[in-house]
Amino acid sequence: MQYDSSGRLRHFLTIEGLERETLVHILDTAETFISFGEREIKKVPILRGKTVVNLFFENSTRTRTTFEIAAKRLSADVINLNPTRLSTSKGESVLDTVRNLEAMHTDLFVVRDAHSGAAYLIAQHVPSHVAIINAGDGRHAHPTQAMLDVFTIRQHKHEFKNLRVAIVGDILHSRVARSQIHALNILGTPEVRVVAPKTLLPTEVERLGVHPYTDMRRGLKDVDVVIMLRLQLERMQGTLIASEQEYFNLYGLTEDKLAQAKPDVLVMHPGPINRGLEIASDVADGPHSVILDQVTNGIAVRMSIMAMVMGGQAGRKKA
Amino acid sequence: MQYDSSGRLRHFLTIEGLERETLVHILDTAETFISFGEREIKKVPILRGKTVVNLFFENSTRTRTTFEIAAKRLSADVINLNPTRLSTSKGESVLDTVRNLEAMHTDLFVVRDAHSGAAYLIAQHVPSHVAIINAGDGRHAHPTQAMLDVFTIRQHKHEFKNLRVAIVGDILHSRVARSQIHALNILGTPEVRVVAPKTLLPTEVERLGVHPYTDMRRGLKDVDVVIMLRLQLERMQGTLIASEQEYFNLYGLTEDKLAQAKPDVLVMHPGPINRGLEIASDVADGPHSVILDQVTNGIAVRMSIMAMVMGGQAGRKKA
Amino acid sequence: MQYDSSGRLRHFLTIEGLERETLVHILDTAETFISFGEREIKKVPILRGKTVVNLFFENSTRTRTTFEIAAKRLSADVINLNPTRLSTSKGESVLDTVRNLEAMHTDLFVVRDAHSGAAYLIAQHVPSHVAIINAGDGRHAHPTQAMLDVFTIRQHKHEFKNLRVAIVGDILHSRVARSQIHALNILGTPEVRVVAPKTLLPTEVERLGVHPYTDMRRGLKDVDVVIMLRLQLERMQGTLIASEQEYFNLYGLTEDKLAQAKPDVLVMHPGPINRGLEIASDVADGPHSVILDQVTNGIAVRMSIMAMVMGGQAGRKKA
Repeated sequence: MQYDSSGRLRHFLTIEGLERETLVHILDTAETFISFGEREIKKVPILRGKTVVNLFFENSTRTRTTFEIAAKRLSADVINLNPTRLSTSKGESVLDTVRNLEAMHTDLFVVRDAHSGAAYLIAQHVPSHVAIINAGDGRHAHPTQAMLDVFTIRQHKHEFKNLRVAIVGDILHSRVARSQIHALNILGTPEVRVVAPKTLLPTEVERLGVHPYTDMRRGLKDVDVVIMLRLQLERMQGTLIASEQEYFNLYGLTEDKLAQAKPDVLVMHPGPINRGLEIASDVADGPHSVILDQVTNGIAVRMSIMAMVMGGQAGRKKA
Repeated sequence: MQYDSSGRLRHFLTIEGLERETLVHILDTAETFISFGEREIKKVPILRGKTVVNLFFENSTRTRTTFEIAAKRLSADVINLNPTRLSTSKGESVLDTVRNLEAMHTDLFVVRDAHSGAAYLIAQHVPSHVAIINAGDGRHAHPTQAMLDVFTIRQHKHEFKNLRVAIVGDILHSRVARSQIHALNILGTPEVRVVAPKTLLPTEVERLGVHPYTDMRRGLKDVDVVIMLRLQLERMQGTLIASEQEYFNLYGLTEDKLAQAKPDVLVMHPGPINRGLEIASDVADGPHSVILDQVTNGIAVRMSIMAMVMGGQAGRKKA
Repeated sequence: MQYDSSGRLRHFLTIEGLERETLVHILDTAETFISFGEREIKKVPILRGKTVVNLFFENSTRTRTTFEIAAKRLSADVINLNPTRLSTSKGESVLDTVRNLEAMHTDLFVVRDAHSGAAYLIAQHVPSHVAIINAGDGRHAHPTQAMLDVFTIRQHKHEFKNLRVAIVGDILHSRVARSQIHALNILGTPEVRVVAPKTLLPTEVERLGVHPYTDMRRGLKDVDVVIMLRLQLERMQGTLIASEQEYFNLYGLTEDKLAQAKPDVLVMHPGPINRGLEIASDVADGPHSVILDQVTNGIAVRMSIMAMVMGGQAGRKKA
């Protein structure tokens, strides 16, 4: 349902099921926006007169800001909303909210929700002139984050066909990891590893097309890219990890552990960083880190995706 | 005081006391904005360089959003403010807030307040270059809502002179009902009914020019339009209605009760809907419902009123 | 560090250390923006395509609104952020926030913080394309407020060289007073007085180049300008002043006390006013008051400073 009947990208809900060509189109279009951030005047009129609604049922100032900046650089008008989700309403009030917004002739909803499937549910109900972008839904997917991650990898490594990538941290709860794994696989990465304590690995994780490791040094051995995940302390409550110090000792990214990887390894993190918890400060700020490149690229990639679902020429499915 | 000395509409505070010509002008101008929402580029430069302040002492994301979208489509800059109203300040702090904003050369205040008369009080104190629109004040008035309602009725029924309209629900506390009654009367609707339990009808309600009914089936008999009001549970505290179930049985709009009305009856509601409380879901989503049309029209009507109080040529009083 | 190596004003953090020419340039540029607020279309394209971030670690709707209006009149895109400052993070999380924002190619940060030195700390770490304006940091400085104050004085008194100015109130805790004193001294005001109870005067206050008074009548004797400070009740907790009534009796500005000043004295206040606490209502609204002029001028002065740090031709240091 992310493509329309003529194969055009209509919504951007999840990486799963997208064609390789679509991902490459997004990355190529994002590249044209990259130089853009350094120009004197950073606006293009691609979405002029369009209304973008940041519909964040789950609060996330950081992600919302990146979409707000991206939309404004495309000359859209932006409305920020943080509606309360009534737990009792069986999804009805969410759909009523959405129906009201679309009746106002708004054009693009960027949806964030603590529940998996929210963006998908909304996309099923909107009329054909409204596009939906998933900005994170529960444990399910965070596809724009994954796209900026693969953009950053391609920027530095040029292609995926020889890469070994390790994703480290709370794989079990991470919508980011899930989307990254799909994107890396679709783009032809031969080896994707996940590194975590057993309690933070999904059962049968191999089915996702990854190689699990519980020993971090072995997991990082000869990798080209390390993607650290943010430890969501608020979601774990001490039951899944023994202590922060022990977690850092075993799975925190230090220079020492990083020495296992290739000499030109990239260190990535979706942010915000917990310094000294999942990553040591000197690694986060060190020569291998491309963490701030990810932030820069995030604007360009989101501009690219917004332009595409709003009717850009790119993003067509294979005929 | 809503007109200036040359008969131009200067503020939009209440329907009461407005001339029929003014209402018709607003509706006609709104019509020119309607096609507009479907255009590729939805902006006109009518308020370019103007600053619109959404001054919401009472929070209402929904209403605020409609004004924000309307103002941005007119190319205005929009500032959203939710100042706290100090209960002890005898209105002084409100006026200090307003004086500060007008000193910043802002042009239009959209005022929402839980107290009746707030917009009126502010309008009395602003200099001639500042216009005020009432976005709901206590139990007193919600005139832009009433204008979008009569716009929606005119859109479907073309004229008012043969209509029978029933307003159902908490008439006593409803600023919406009060404004609707004035608008319908000024536009020449021959029969306006109000339907509610006795406890939710104002005393001597006939003075407003309406026919009261406590029996809903009798109240809906042969009407052309049913306007349901939202049950403001938070304002009633169980003392005025016996129970939600009993209320729905007696005054909830069901297909069964709706069968009393004319076959081409319109069902309206200002939103947000309490499904299963004042209206059954199948009626809200059914073929008679124009509830989402109301939302669409709300943008056009608010654009029309904003353009008019900011110096549009229309809206002059009879010479 | 407020100037770059070629003497251009790069950040605006504190009045201290700025050259007289810089202050005069800011005031002259602001004058060109003053007529501007009264024009039909109040926008100039000076910051078109630039992204201004209002980074308010300490909440202040009032100050934020003035910067938002100023930035929008310069055609910038504005992002409002109220990040939480983690007290435990030794400034690191603040810098991570800032690094993320600059990675998004934002151009100007307007920083407000309850801690002295925040804007300075951030300015030390940003790359050369990012400019910082201090919108108030702890007890240290509020330089844009001081600039709008001296602008208002110049507007009415034309020059500083013959003026006697009294600043009255909580000098000890006031970042506003500190910045005003520096600005008045740099612009050549021969006599600046501070008037306060001993408990609200810094030790060795004379070192700032001011004359302290604890008796208000003597302090106001023959002054040309009285600047009242806002009593920050929340910062004092009853220990520094005996009671509100006693404070008003001794240091509240009344017509009676004001009679000590010159007949054409100006009464100023940074707002918001505590009527009946530090100033009587009839004085605040009286013929000597230029309090609302200060608000109007605040927009023009902030536009001037924003334009200047973003690369305006003005603001160069003496060669």
